[in-house]
Amino acid sequence: MPVTPETQQIIALVVRQNTPGIDEPVKRLVDYLGESGYRVVFEADTAAYLGSLGIGGAEAMSVAGIGERADYAVVMGGDGTMLGIARQLARYDIPLIGINSGRLGFITDIPIDRMVPALDEILKGRHVQAEERTLLEARVVRDGAEIYCSVAFNDVVVARGTGAGMVELSVTVDGEFMYNQRSDGLIVSTPTGSTAYALSAGGPLLHPRLQGVTLVPIAPHALSNRPIVVPESSEIVVELVAGRDISVNFDMQTFTSLQLGDRIVISRSPHTITFLHPRGWSYYHTLREKLHWNEYPTNEGKLI
Amino acid sequence: MPVTPETQQIIALVVRQNTPGIDEPVKRLVDYLGESGYRVVFEADTAAYLGSLGIGGAEAMSVAGIGERADYAVVMGGDGTMLGIARQLARYDIPLIGINSGRLGFITDIPIDRMVPALDEILKGRHVQAEERTLLEARVVRDGAEIYCSVAFNDVVVARGTGAGMVELSVTVDGEFMYNQRSDGLIVSTPTGSTAYALSAGGPLLHPRLQGVTLVPIAPHALSNRPIVVPESSEIVVELVAGRDISVNFDMQTFTSLQLGDRIVISRSPHTITFLHPRGWSYYHTLREKLHWNEYPTNEGKLI
Amino acid sequence: MPVTPETQQIIALVVRQNTPGIDEPVKRLVDYLGESGYRVVFEADTAAYLGSLGIGGAEAMSVAGIGERADYAVVMGGDGTMLGIARQLARYDIPLIGINSGRLGFITDIPIDRMVPALDEILKGRHVQAEERTLLEARVVRDGAEIYCSVAFNDVVVARGTGAGMVELSVTVDGEFMYNQRSDGLIVSTPTGSTAYALSAGGPLLHPRLQGVTLVPIAPHALSNRPIVVPESSEIVVELVAGRDISVNFDMQTFTSLQLGDRIVISRSPHTITFLHPRGWSYYHTLREKLHWNEYPTNEGKLI
Amino acid sequence: MPVTPETQQIIALVVRQNTPGIDEPVKRLVDYLGESGYRVVFEADTAAYLGSLGIGGAEAMSVAGIGERADYAVVMGGDGTMLGIARQLARYDIPLIGINSGRLGFITDIPIDRMVPALDEILKGRHVQAEERTLLEARVVRDGAEIYCSVAFNDVVVARGTGAGMVELSVTVDGEFMYNQRSDGLIVSTPTGSTAYALSAGGPLLHPRLQGVTLVPIAPHALSNRPIVVPESSEIVVELVAGRDISVNFDMQTFTSLQLGDRIVISRSPHTITFLHPRGWSYYHTLREKLHWNEYPTNEGKLI
Repeated sequence: MPVTPETQQIIALVVRQNTPGIDEPVKRLVDYLGESGYRVVFEADTAAYLGSLGIGGAEAMSVAGIGERADYAVVMGGDGTMLGIARQLARYDIPLIGINSGRLGFITDIPIDRMVPALDEILKGRHVQAEERTLLEARVVRDGAEIYCSVAFNDVVVARGTGAGMVELSVTVDGEFMYNQRSDGLIVSTPTGSTAYALSAGGPLLHPRLQGVTLVPIAPHALSNRPIVVPESSEIVVELVAGRDISVNFDMQTFTSLQLGDRIVISRSPHTITFLHPRGWSYYHTLREKLHWNEYPTNEGKLI
Repeated sequence: MPVTPETQQIIALVVRQNTPGIDEPVKRLVDYLGESGYRVVFEADTAAYLGSLGIGGAEAMSVAGIGERADYAVVMGGDGTMLGIARQLARYDIPLIGINSGRLGFITDIPIDRMVPALDEILKGRHVQAEERTLLEARVVRDGAEIYCSVAFNDVVVARGTGAGMVELSVTVDGEFMYNQRSDGLIVSTPTGSTAYALSAGGPLLHPRLQGVTLVPIAPHALSNRPIVVPESSEIVVELVAGRDISVNFDMQTFTSLQLGDRIVISRSPHTITFLHPRGWSYYHTLREKLHWNEYPTNEGKLI
Repeated sequence: MPVTPETQQIIALVVRQNTPGIDEPVKRLVDYLGESGYRVVFEADTAAYLGSLGIGGAEAMSVAGIGERADYAVVMGGDGTMLGIARQLARYDIPLIGINSGRLGFITDIPIDRMVPALDEILKGRHVQAEERTLLEARVVRDGAEIYCSVAFNDVVVARGTGAGMVELSVTVDGEFMYNQRSDGLIVSTPTGSTAYALSAGGPLLHPRLQGVTLVPIAPHALSNRPIVVPESSEIVVELVAGRDISVNFDMQTFTSLQLGDRIVISRSPHTITFLHPRGWSYYHTLREKLHWNEYPTNEGKLI
Repeated sequence: MPVTPETQQIIALVVRQNTPGIDEPVKRLVDYLGESGYRVVFEADTAAYLGSLGIGGAEAMSVAGIGERADYAVVMGGDGTMLGIARQLARYDIPLIGINSGRLGFITDIPIDRMVPALDEILKGRHVQAEERTLLEARVVRDGAEIYCSVAFNDVVVARGTGAGMVELSVTVDGEFMYNQRSDGLIVSTPTGSTAYALSAGGPLLHPRLQGVTLVPIAPHALSNRPIVVPESSEIVVELVAGRDISVNFDMQTFTSLQLGDRIVISRSPHTITFLHPRGWSYYHTLREKLHWNEYPTNEGKLI
């Protein structure tokens, strides 16, 4: 049965061009997708970039268009690329497939040299693992009115300004006062973000299926202000009590014009992000690779 | 309407005697319960102890009997006392009320000087917060056969012996290999245990309602072997790969005759423990008190 | 023999006025010093402040004048006050005596209610402990030329700007390349500073007599970038490799107009700061008080 | 001029046989030393092992004999091998040269494939770096009498027994009380040991030339019981206050029959260990390799 445009599924391709030597793999990927029976569209910036490589023949589409109309998005790049696209596509519930153009990423988990068989498995639906990831929604509230709103896939970070001493933040969870914290700032992180900035600041790893959010203080004045994990259903309110030039960061987007008394209200987003993985994908495998676990041989001699 | 024995609710009292000056509060508590309209029973050891203080008049009952027949258990002591009783009563789903006889505990949260109004609120059901806590169930499996089984309210700890060098443990979660870890040992902790040994070893705090379990390595050889939180529905298998004199600890119970190749299989218990708290109880309040959060005044001078 | 102005020793008083209720103790202190046989001078800002309280009769003197002419300086305030004055007086080798006007400080160790006997012991030289503290000297070098120079008593901190992602710093010690580090920044701290920001960022405590300086990364990307302690004789060079809006902080002074390629060159200052303590002063006592060590009773019941 | 036995320098060889494939390099090493103009002796166990490989022709000598008579000792093995030999040779002040037979070690820093040129540089004295390392001396004192004495090159560790709950230790430094600590134990570590167990337990790295010793609590009950570095000239006394089955470990030697009230008295040994390194050796290079610092490319894309 010939596939007609009305019924043909749409697959979108997003590529970021910051990796040397990526041209050849991109061409292979485009060729593969062209023959896969899907209608291929290029995200607008991707189309411009691929055009400069002499790769054309596919419709350019805005990210919003992709969200509304495509069935899958294949993202080739690093975790940063995926993070940026995922945030924009969050509201559309389109599943994402990540191909890492350089080193293995936490969320771009298919290496280039395995992309064709991996995509084959996933797109033909034979051996696909769908994995849902939580997003946060955060609003900046001043005098009772919302002045800014954003989503975060990794984390919401409230932090002090340059050379500005500590901040003091008052944290309330589900209406219960948690603490006043003095520190360089506070990271509120999803499981996805738990391998990013939160990890550097001393936070725990959270399995993607854990329904939890972690609050990780950055260089807290009180040594007992340890990372805490709360249910993802919690509403977390961070109020600015003291400090100068405080900013709040939603993944890569910074909002700087904060005032003392402003409140950052953080809760789970109604949307989630779905990643598709090929057979045999394992979160722990990614952790082992990225964190250099198990680098020692099992039976080596006595350690000093 | 007079309360007849058939319909009268039973309240059990458990007291541990390691606190000087506890006699007078115990007497007040017994008097209060006697007038509360409940039928009061004493746990067997408690009965002996109270008898030595000249407090009698109530039936002595085994812990199992309390589990089967009582409607509430009031535990006066420290967190250790509560932990021991809670483990024994876990299978009976009887709600527990904790009165701390000394310093504020994490799970014995009613101070003696507020016990009467707090119990009044709880027992009359006016202002009661019921809070469910997760338990772990752990089995030691050798050559495919279970050789030991226990429950843990705080944590299951696999640890090296005295002067015995590191252990090597292979950890698998839900059938997926996580890592081989070399360390002094591994703590698998519930949210309740997250404020105990796991915290000392660098683990995060877990809110009691978080449906998660944390794996905290003790002095791991690899610096990137960080604490990880997994869903509480996970089956965690810890296999003994190398090391001498390894033991496994279930809260306060130690099992020592382990061999290399033995596997500790840990999962959520089908039972939970229910604590009853009076109005205004807050987990964060307990954390603030116990961890000395917020000890500084808000507007003090510049810190160095 | 009457003391003549030529031979009379000079004692300088520095007071900061940010503590409510300090008037009365200041008056007592001024009275005590007036009767002590020393010639009392007031630091210029102190003179203005004391004048507003109706306390006069002593010569006002600039900090430089105090450094050149006084034999002792008594500083009443918090650690921040002492830190600021100590930095200014570092080049003059005048011994300092710290009286804390509020909570016990790490370096203002004499409580107000013990100031008279403590000063008596120190000034009469009967039971005095002199303790020398190291200072750092740091220069900002651009294209081979020094563009800024300062001293630091606590720490030199190179840190990222607001919402500006990580910095990358290249660290060289005594001409040997240590590492390229990606983080929020790097703290280079004296023993004095080891109880301040460096501690919050995960650094070790350094005993004041340890001839060492600690490098503490702030939220480093690599988990193995652990704090390191090097001999205080080391020359530490921090070069700015990547990042935006990077600043360097010398205790409380911020220098912000840094560029990539700039190098911060840090070494021990030829000057030291000398604190005088009364008999029985102990660094460990201060640590115990400030860090809440030993808050538990020795023989309490079993912990959970 | 022919070298006569009276004037010929003696070089001792120590090899441990736990590495597969080491036979060929050992032969090359023995050949090289035989032609180097030195008189070669084999440590007794090494002689037996080499004999089993058909390598003979050199005198067997006890470790004590080597200490008394040899001019250099070449140690081929892992850090554990070097550690064991170094402890035995400490009193003799004989310089050591470490060749790692497997992975790079912290103190066996010459890889097999560079051993000949490296030894050439060192033995001909052209480009040799001599580096002195501190040792600890520890005595167990009961009722005022010494009952055991040992040295430690890495660390002295006082630790709890299997399944035995926390220990309580009272620590005094140079006669000043530091704290009572409750924990799994306490590590007192030299700079050499700072990359071993102390690092796993959260301690800082100490540069080998730092004249300091670090006290690192293992899983301390009080979160503010942070690692502390004291001058190496300090006398550290650890008294056993509470706990069961406590042991003390001197590097790899365990002393177990401790009682409450026993005191472990730790101070710098009068001896040091001297390592010889070839030109270009750098402690920071070793750290980078062993701790996987700088594994990322400098100009990679944005991290998440």
